[in-house]
Amino acid sequence: MTNQPSPNAQFVPFNGYHQTQQGEPDWELAKVGAGTVCGEYLRRYWHPIFLTGELGDKPKLIRILGEQLVLFRDRSRRIGLVHKKCPHRRASLEFGRIEARGIRCCYHGWLFDIHGAILEIPGEPADSPSAKKIMQTERLGAYPVHEYHGLIFAYTGPPEEQPPFPIYDTFKLPDMVMTPYAVSFNCNWIQVLDAIVDPVHTAFLHQGQFSDGLGELGEIQFYERQKNRIIGTAARRVGDNIWVRVNELILPNFTQSGAAFAVDGTVEKYFGRSAFTRWMVPIDDEHCIAFSWGNFGERADPLEFNTPEELQRIEQGEPINRSYRQKQQSPGDIEAVEGIGAISDHQKEHLLSGDRGIMLYRRRIWRLCRDLAAGKPPPQPTDLAPNVIPTYGSDTVLKIPQPDGNDCPALLKQINDQVMDIFFQADTLEGADRDRFVFEQLSQI
Amino acid sequence: MTNQPSPNAQFVPFNGYHQTQQGEPDWELAKVGAGTVCGEYLRRYWHPIFLTGELGDKPKLIRILGEQLVLFRDRSRRIGLVHKKCPHRRASLEFGRIEARGIRCCYHGWLFDIHGAILEIPGEPADSPSAKKIMQTERLGAYPVHEYHGLIFAYTGPPEEQPPFPIYDTFKLPDMVMTPYAVSFNCNWIQVLDAIVDPVHTAFLHQGQFSDGLGELGEIQFYERQKNRIIGTAARRVGDNIWVRVNELILPNFTQSGAAFAVDGTVEKYFGRSAFTRWMVPIDDEHCIAFSWGNFGERADPLEFNTPEELQRIEQGEPINRSYRQKQQSPGDIEAVEGIGAISDHQKEHLLSGDRGIMLYRRRIWRLCRDLAAGKPPPQPTDLAPNVIPTYGSDTVLKIPQPDGNDCPALLKQINDQVMDIFFQADTLEGADRDRFVFEQLSQI
Amino acid sequence: MTNQPSPNAQFVPFNGYHQTQQGEPDWELAKVGAGTVCGEYLRRYWHPIFLTGELGDKPKLIRILGEQLVLFRDRSRRIGLVHKKCPHRRASLEFGRIEARGIRCCYHGWLFDIHGAILEIPGEPADSPSAKKIMQTERLGAYPVHEYHGLIFAYTGPPEEQPPFPIYDTFKLPDMVMTPYAVSFNCNWIQVLDAIVDPVHTAFLHQGQFSDGLGELGEIQFYERQKNRIIGTAARRVGDNIWVRVNELILPNFTQSGAAFAVDGTVEKYFGRSAFTRWMVPIDDEHCIAFSWGNFGERADPLEFNTPEELQRIEQGEPINRSYRQKQQSPGDIEAVEGIGAISDHQKEHLLSGDRGIMLYRRRIWRLCRDLAAGKPPPQPTDLAPNVIPTYGSDTVLKIPQPDGNDCPALLKQINDQVMDIFFQADTLEGADRDRFVFEQLSQI
Repeated sequence: MTNQPSPNAQFVPFNGYHQTQQGEPDWELAKVGAGTVCGEYLRRYWHPIFLTGELGDKPKLIRILGEQLVLFRDRSRRIGLVHKKCPHRRASLEFGRIEARGIRCCYHGWLFDIHGAILEIPGEPADSPSAKKIMQTERLGAYPVHEYHGLIFAYTGPPEEQPPFPIYDTFKLPDMVMTPYAVSFNCNWIQVLDAIVDPVHTAFLHQGQFSDGLGELGEIQFYERQKNRIIGTAARRVGDNIWVRVNELILPNFTQSGAAFAVDGTVEKYFGRSAFTRWMVPIDDEHCIAFSWGNFGERADPLEFNTPEELQRIEQGEPINRSYRQKQQSPGDIEAVEGIGAISDHQKEHLLSGDRGIMLYRRRIWRLCRDLAAGKPPPQPTDLAPNVIPTYGSDTVLKIPQPDGNDCPALLKQINDQVMDIFFQADTLEGADRDRFVFEQLSQI
Repeated sequence: MTNQPSPNAQFVPFNGYHQTQQGEPDWELAKVGAGTVCGEYLRRYWHPIFLTGELGDKPKLIRILGEQLVLFRDRSRRIGLVHKKCPHRRASLEFGRIEARGIRCCYHGWLFDIHGAILEIPGEPADSPSAKKIMQTERLGAYPVHEYHGLIFAYTGPPEEQPPFPIYDTFKLPDMVMTPYAVSFNCNWIQVLDAIVDPVHTAFLHQGQFSDGLGELGEIQFYERQKNRIIGTAARRVGDNIWVRVNELILPNFTQSGAAFAVDGTVEKYFGRSAFTRWMVPIDDEHCIAFSWGNFGERADPLEFNTPEELQRIEQGEPINRSYRQKQQSPGDIEAVEGIGAISDHQKEHLLSGDRGIMLYRRRIWRLCRDLAAGKPPPQPTDLAPNVIPTYGSDTVLKIPQPDGNDCPALLKQINDQVMDIFFQADTLEGADRDRFVFEQLSQI
Repeated sequence: MTNQPSPNAQFVPFNGYHQTQQGEPDWELAKVGAGTVCGEYLRRYWHPIFLTGELGDKPKLIRILGEQLVLFRDRSRRIGLVHKKCPHRRASLEFGRIEARGIRCCYHGWLFDIHGAILEIPGEPADSPSAKKIMQTERLGAYPVHEYHGLIFAYTGPPEEQPPFPIYDTFKLPDMVMTPYAVSFNCNWIQVLDAIVDPVHTAFLHQGQFSDGLGELGEIQFYERQKNRIIGTAARRVGDNIWVRVNELILPNFTQSGAAFAVDGTVEKYFGRSAFTRWMVPIDDEHCIAFSWGNFGERADPLEFNTPEELQRIEQGEPINRSYRQKQQSPGDIEAVEGIGAISDHQKEHLLSGDRGIMLYRRRIWRLCRDLAAGKPPPQPTDLAPNVIPTYGSDTVLKIPQPDGNDCPALLKQINDQVMDIFFQADTLEGADRDRFVFEQLSQI
């Protein structure tokens, strides 16, 4: 909306004194530690926590959801994820010795396996009843992990509630090259997550950073599906074409969009897939980390973009380590979201129609958190499809000449709806069957 | 006072155990944030906040009186000072884009002018009633600024109480070269302000750093005028001359003294003016910054001292960036006041007659703060003279041979009184008229 | 104790979610500031606080038991230890000027002597009654110090309770070279102190870092003597020899053990003495510093180990400044104790028989702290012997072939007891007399 300034009767210029700067964060969403409302909700899902390629022969001290943990691969090649401190005298297992059966504390040699069992207490007499009792009743806190395509995932919730590891359709696209990467943000996870269902920021913050045409705002719509999916679409006119781009969030933190560079709306395309497949994982209340695959190949961005530098641009629009001057010159997502501060004062936000996706997903998380607190487990992505879970993040470019030389928003909205309807209809199909169905339907719009 | 140690009957040596080290700060003076007693009082005045020469084509994130603000010059050359965060989704305007009409948020392109008006919300439909409403009812916190002689001043108090920008006599001295500078202190503003009405520290801390003769303590007197001026004078005997130096504080934080290097008492001088014209501006409770002009020319220090290095010496007696060893060897004001800690424990002070100026100004601020809390606005420097405000910071050296070969303190005190009386009588005069009157009267002492 | 993992019926693998990571520290022992339970107890003893060799011609700002203090040697060569801040306007005395009679504050020239007396207030008139009163009634907090063998000791407790400076036998060993050193730890003093009466960690953490043979666990026993001594012994079989190593803690924080490199059990030795004579001194709740002498000569480690590098290895098993990778490769004491965190969550410990020394000394400190709070002063090391205090930290290697080719623990235990009994019997003897008695008795085992 553009208006002339309206210094009307009520307008008081230079009124900063009468406006409080600081407001309250939405603590219910912002806090991620054990025992917090949202922390408990987040603990019901698998999250990527490390890059396989960075796990060598020494333990790694990491922080996830506010917990300090030690990750290691034992000499039997099993990956262990355990609490940081030895239950004996609290030494850090980051200095532990890795062995075939697990990890041995550096201080007094207690040996633990990846399940958390205490296998040896070597400093005690062989017949010590107190040592025997400890080995039977105590254990090291441990979590299950799952290694997949170069990312290590963990589940840190109640073991009796462990959900299946979800396989999304984009994990299985033929000929797709998936390159794992991680980017850290010095701020709360919510304010980074916000951007995925915010197609407006793409047209402003990222102007000139991705494909031409993304600088155009387009007609934006939001969809909510199956209590855990928030979808934002933007339909843009490019010459004789209409370009529908779909951003998606599967709760709590799985995100996909369209291509970063491959599509600009000038060439017809059916169901091109996401530049990234990405999880926004909380480290603690004031830090988070995007674990992701950059996707390259015919269905996503060209293979030439598969470099460390371009992965940074796919993640946030610009390279990451820049001078303050460069950041001011052309800010990326990191500048936008970290500039807000460690935890945003959500109370002071003024959300408008372009922020509807944000309102939808936050409200949905609130509801799911409260349901969980009341004893009702949150939905899992695998609820929709037990094998391969359909996702929608994509670009579709359809040849639809302007009916009378001037698009009405209604037409763009209608195309958004039609494209999403085709995707939803295909939910029960998999792989090539689904693609065939979607392509055929799209060709008939 | 010099005495032999008096390990009298009551003296317990090595009694540190029975003496508490830590005391309470005077929180009423020390706290400067919005809503605090002294913070509200300080907000009733114009303060320098930035050097014009350092404001380029990008916004600057600054902190003043505990508030995070963004300063910028729009492409129409108007200077804006606004709250840090965009009212939409709280992105920092330090990454904003500067335009002809104001500053545009990097995240979603909201445009604000220097008055705080929201000029554009481009991400919303042209007919959006909610966007229209926000543009009419919400605004970005903004403050008026005034650029003067290379310093940018701001007023961050209630707009309905905005005082006139004060023009002091020293801004208008003919042929004076005024060089703006800024020096930061990592401590509360009060403990830096203290030094201006503390002529004793000049004789000890600054021994050998400024003019010879300042190492002599002299006869010290304090004057309080018009509820907002605290003046400290030191009269020193130098050969056949008596040198009267006047330090002044105009509340809350405007300070002047005599020359740093030009005067040593050996040569007669009438009403030489201050080495600096300086404000001690709180950044937050634990940091402050001296914004100042160094004054050079016939009435102040010689032009050859107009260098970045000498400005540092004028400010604190020594260069600023030195090794810890150098600081220990010859401490300056920064070592003295930062060594006290972030906020002094005023409760533990033992103030004596040389600290009377400090007691006077602190009590005066307390009273003005309480008056303000009770609804009575504090006095403005412009109350005394609406055009050019007379100030007193100065050096005067008079030929007055010793009456009987030995000065009595009474004579020095009398000279202090006579000199100040002449200055006070001249309060209603301006410029050359005032100088003429003062010179003539001084010549008759 | 070594066992097969017992994933028995009750064992829940990956049960981290149900185990709280964080527990409570033992605040009673961990807090060391003035007025805290353990802080008051610690203040009843002399502690080393600085290396003589590092005290030059400028004051030193230090922190001990949570207090910020300034240490200096005046021009009369007397060492002063005083509170950080000048009682006048709270300037830090680290910027003070050292003079023949004491230290002069940089700010206004107040002069203090090492006893805390205010000798001069030069900024006040000679006849000022208020200055005179301050000089008589106020003083700078000061503490007595004692310089000995390159270490500066201080007593910061109530002056009326100042204990004698304790002279331990190891200060007086003929031909011993004592090299002072200091090593800082970024954690609470308790978790560093723990290691001295923990012979088990020597066999694991320090495997390969000290003498061969120390990697063997041995038969461990603990002794408590005179309410302030905790002794841990380890008897190891080495060929035809039994090697008895004695570690000792004299409360609150004096520690000794055997040699680091000189003894490996293969050669007979009677009453070889400690590699170090060491105090674990709290800086504040989250930092401590080991002040120590490394001992070299016939009775301790060979003189060739008297280098800065080897002193670091004696202190913690490895050099101190290493890469994180090196620390992971071969952790030393610093990695073990700092890895625990700033203050351990003692509540989460699981102490076993090897930790009995730790339980003993902690309980003993608790009791002594409570006695002190109830008005009963804690025991002093000089209570046992007013002149030279006997200590036990040592190595003894006795030729005792295996009775039937296989040691029973009972024999090793018996040797531990016999050796300690001889030491205890010798408590009333001094110097060569004591050595002669001990040697003769040991030769008869």
